[in-house]
Amino acid sequence: MNGALRIIPLGGLGEVGKNMTVYEAGGETIVVDAGLAFPRDEHLGVDLVLPDMSYLAELPGGVRAVVLTHGHEDHVGALPYLLRTANVREIWATRLTLGLIKSKLDEHGLLRAAELRELEVGPPVELGPFRVEAVRMAHSIPDCVALAIEAEGMLVVHTGDYKLDHTPIDGLKTDVGRLAELGNRGVDLLLGDSTNAERPGVTPSERVVGEAFRQIFPLREGRILVSSFASNVHRMQQAIDVAGDVGRKVCVVGRSMRKNVNIARNLGYMDVPDGMLLRPEELAELPPREQLVLCTGSQGEPLSALTRIAYHDHPAVSVERGDTVIISAKPVPGNELRVHDAINRLAQAGAEVLHQEIAPVHVSGHACKEELRTILSLVRPKAVMPVHGEFRMLAAHAELARDAGVPASAIVLAENGTVVQLDAEGARVVDQITAGVTFVDGLGVGDVKDVALRDRRRLSEDGVLIIVATLNGDAAARPELIARGFTGPDELLDETRDEAERVLRELLAEDVLEIKLLQEHLHDSVGQLIYDRTRRRPMILPVVVEV
Amino acid sequence: MNGALRIIPLGGLGEVGKNMTVYEAGGETIVVDAGLAFPRDEHLGVDLVLPDMSYLAELPGGVRAVVLTHGHEDHVGALPYLLRTANVREIWATRLTLGLIKSKLDEHGLLRAAELRELEVGPPVELGPFRVEAVRMAHSIPDCVALAIEAEGMLVVHTGDYKLDHTPIDGLKTDVGRLAELGNRGVDLLLGDSTNAERPGVTPSERVVGEAFRQIFPLREGRILVSSFASNVHRMQQAIDVAGDVGRKVCVVGRSMRKNVNIARNLGYMDVPDGMLLRPEELAELPPREQLVLCTGSQGEPLSALTRIAYHDHPAVSVERGDTVIISAKPVPGNELRVHDAINRLAQAGAEVLHQEIAPVHVSGHACKEELRTILSLVRPKAVMPVHGEFRMLAAHAELARDAGVPASAIVLAENGTVVQLDAEGARVVDQITAGVTFVDGLGVGDVKDVALRDRRRLSEDGVLIIVATLNGDAAARPELIARGFTGPDELLDETRDEAERVLRELLAEDVLEIKLLQEHLHDSVGQLIYDRTRRRPMILPVVVEV
Repeated sequence: MNGALRIIPLGGLGEVGKNMTVYEAGGETIVVDAGLAFPRDEHLGVDLVLPDMSYLAELPGGVRAVVLTHGHEDHVGALPYLLRTANVREIWATRLTLGLIKSKLDEHGLLRAAELRELEVGPPVELGPFRVEAVRMAHSIPDCVALAIEAEGMLVVHTGDYKLDHTPIDGLKTDVGRLAELGNRGVDLLLGDSTNAERPGVTPSERVVGEAFRQIFPLREGRILVSSFASNVHRMQQAIDVAGDVGRKVCVVGRSMRKNVNIARNLGYMDVPDGMLLRPEELAELPPREQLVLCTGSQGEPLSALTRIAYHDHPAVSVERGDTVIISAKPVPGNELRVHDAINRLAQAGAEVLHQEIAPVHVSGHACKEELRTILSLVRPKAVMPVHGEFRMLAAHAELARDAGVPASAIVLAENGTVVQLDAEGARVVDQITAGVTFVDGLGVGDVKDVALRDRRRLSEDGVLIIVATLNGDAAARPELIARGFTGPDELLDETRDEAERVLRELLAEDVLEIKLLQEHLHDSVGQLIYDRTRRRPMILPVVVEV
Repeated sequence: MNGALRIIPLGGLGEVGKNMTVYEAGGETIVVDAGLAFPRDEHLGVDLVLPDMSYLAELPGGVRAVVLTHGHEDHVGALPYLLRTANVREIWATRLTLGLIKSKLDEHGLLRAAELRELEVGPPVELGPFRVEAVRMAHSIPDCVALAIEAEGMLVVHTGDYKLDHTPIDGLKTDVGRLAELGNRGVDLLLGDSTNAERPGVTPSERVVGEAFRQIFPLREGRILVSSFASNVHRMQQAIDVAGDVGRKVCVVGRSMRKNVNIARNLGYMDVPDGMLLRPEELAELPPREQLVLCTGSQGEPLSALTRIAYHDHPAVSVERGDTVIISAKPVPGNELRVHDAINRLAQAGAEVLHQEIAPVHVSGHACKEELRTILSLVRPKAVMPVHGEFRMLAAHAELARDAGVPASAIVLAENGTVVQLDAEGARVVDQITAGVTFVDGLGVGDVKDVALRDRRRLSEDGVLIIVATLNGDAAARPELIARGFTGPDELLDETRDEAERVLRELLAEDVLEIKLLQEHLHDSVGQLIYDRTRRRPMILPVVVEV
């Protein structure tokens, strides 16, 4: 009971996404969450972004257990990659989360890569030197938990994602009573969700969206489409309930949403009478006013159901004048333009499109300032480490902790890779390990690095110009040019060939025959000519072939 | 008085930006506004987006006059390009707008390309068959006007951008009285700003932001930075006024903002005592609590003042703990991530960052639903053509017009290039001309087309792989590979060379010697191999050299 607990976030700090936190005690390691992030604009061609998990790969004893707080991709999406990278003994998750990850691991052929264990709310589980208790939290997916983690005589509360929804759809509220009990026992450190720490007030209950559906649905004569995150089980349940009341049947469209609805129904997290569900090909038989379509695509993803519907490219669902499309989600920053494009296309098809900017058809899943204050008051932590958010959000959460009376010296503003030690003397930063990003591009995990991205960026801006020069002894033929993504005035290509020819001649006349030198000179003088004429900087690739 | 008036929007419909509308009557042409748009993600490497102005270039009589509603870039930014494209006789604009475009035309060496004429509010000007009257409108830049355009016995009201600010900073309200008089006379067609047509209620007055400044400034001990659009003269004036009251001096940072402040002060649109203004190099002499820095960069533009300050890369301004940064603007869709990056960097430097999501430090310049309804009631147009907005905004504006009693047949939902005819029988679509986009990239205007953008897109996703094959009669050396932005497993490049060599050998053995055919086969088989191994599709460029 007198060692130290070490906590190392590998992702989720200074960013929204790829949440992953390592806990170390008594020579053993557990990992809370294993999430992914989606690529940003500058991650050209990248499909997914993972935490750099090399620290875990190198652990001699491997990972005792991964404990998951809930089933969102930014908390579980890196799991298959973690299982391929590190030696993981057990995965603990609540029932729905387990159902979702089983399906994911199955797709990756990894169902037997680690032991899957159900985490129940209440009774703690012993994981080597760790004692982990799941505490019920409300969020935008059912079966979310916070974790109370005890080790080395220290007690840490790790909130996962949550809000204080007092009227959640499943009645399972954030367990403020248990959090208060933990607070009374003495919590040494709180790791808390910071996503909405900048936002004043309180996040509305999920039920508010159901009330909006109840206002909207009865007035509509045409089809109703509701697009949301595929994991938002309660959102879909509410839409289905209102549909039932107004005599509409339900069709679920989009692979991930169909999959999640199946899992949630099988496990009892959704209640949909069999007779209410239609297959997409049955839609044509029903008048529009008896249809509710639930679909993926709330982020304007290029191949999603809603995008295909918007572009008249969906085999089973179309939209026409009189229909109503409800985009029941907020665009993740970076997706705004794609979502706007989809809205415009749907409006052009004649649909009325309701979205979160103009109707109360979405609520956040994360706690705002007053909720964070409530949690701080209940848990009364000796130290606070804001997690899960961009720096501004972490800083706003730190400010709330200060307001709540946590001394500034006990507030840890960490980054990914910061090693935080917690012992009787409190929480403090003791080290920094390498933590960064691993890109998934096609089948490759980790092979795309900054240099490839830099080249892609350069190529994306002004294209590429290849100069093919053939040397025959000390004579050079007129070089050929191949341009892709680069254009210039008509006369420029001729001028460029002249310039390349001139450069080669001069160098050969001076007996410069080394290929590398010839290429460098070609690169520099052609690049300069093109910049002078066009103010563009295509990537110049000289190919010199000796015959 | 019995011909027809033709109206052709060349930009601004189905989009936000590059507003430009052509009016034709009696064989003469005037153009209202000549705006640009900023490139979207998919416009790789493009600097600016202009309307396709080829229609105007081909007009035998040229353009009688360009009339500008206000000085924002999306209304005047394409002017230099228009002057180079078409023969324009006069440019009419109100005093501040004229000041701003003079500076712009001067930079382009185009000050004498057309006659610059001051447009005054009130007395109409005769432009050939057109009679144009400017009506005062309030917006987020001073000296905005709507245009009442009479020709061929028809009266059109073209609103420009506006809101119904009843307490504008300069006291110059939207002239609802004059709009009502025009309505009483009988308006045949209203072309109205649709930007906020989806948003319920009323846009708050610009004065609200000044009130926020008045709450925020007195409490701050450190530097205060306010970043806004460089053209938002009243925003800057309000910040300066409050700064004066709390004993802060003002430093304006960022080229466009310094330029605009100079123009606005010289023309009497801003009131800043000389002693209040500091040069950037004087900042160091003043304690932070006596400084107000006004700066560009509210959109997170890479080279702007605020971005350079956030990245500790500004020669004169730095930010530290205790400072306050106010981002007094809303990110234009597509700029969200860059603005968030800047906020995070500033927060990391220790500044408190106030932005529109969490504090009332910005208001829109565009009218919301209730204001649009008010205008429709005042102007009582016989027909309505929503302009200035994405399709969903135009559709929402059309809905408001219907609610206001305009018959559906008199509501024109046009696109860029739609030719609308207005005569005694009303407004209707009679034709469609080519209208699209012209890209500015470096010095090139219009030379970057879709094919170059498609290549750039492809290059940006998976890079480029060049295969250099040398033929000597019917013998081939082992091909060389050059990859940029493309990576794969270590063994893949060898495997690819083997494959290329195999393909060449087989073809040569079959006496296939035609370069084009060899290239095609190399392209296809290497592309397939790489896709199979990596699920990536780099651009494959085979170069076959005969010796």
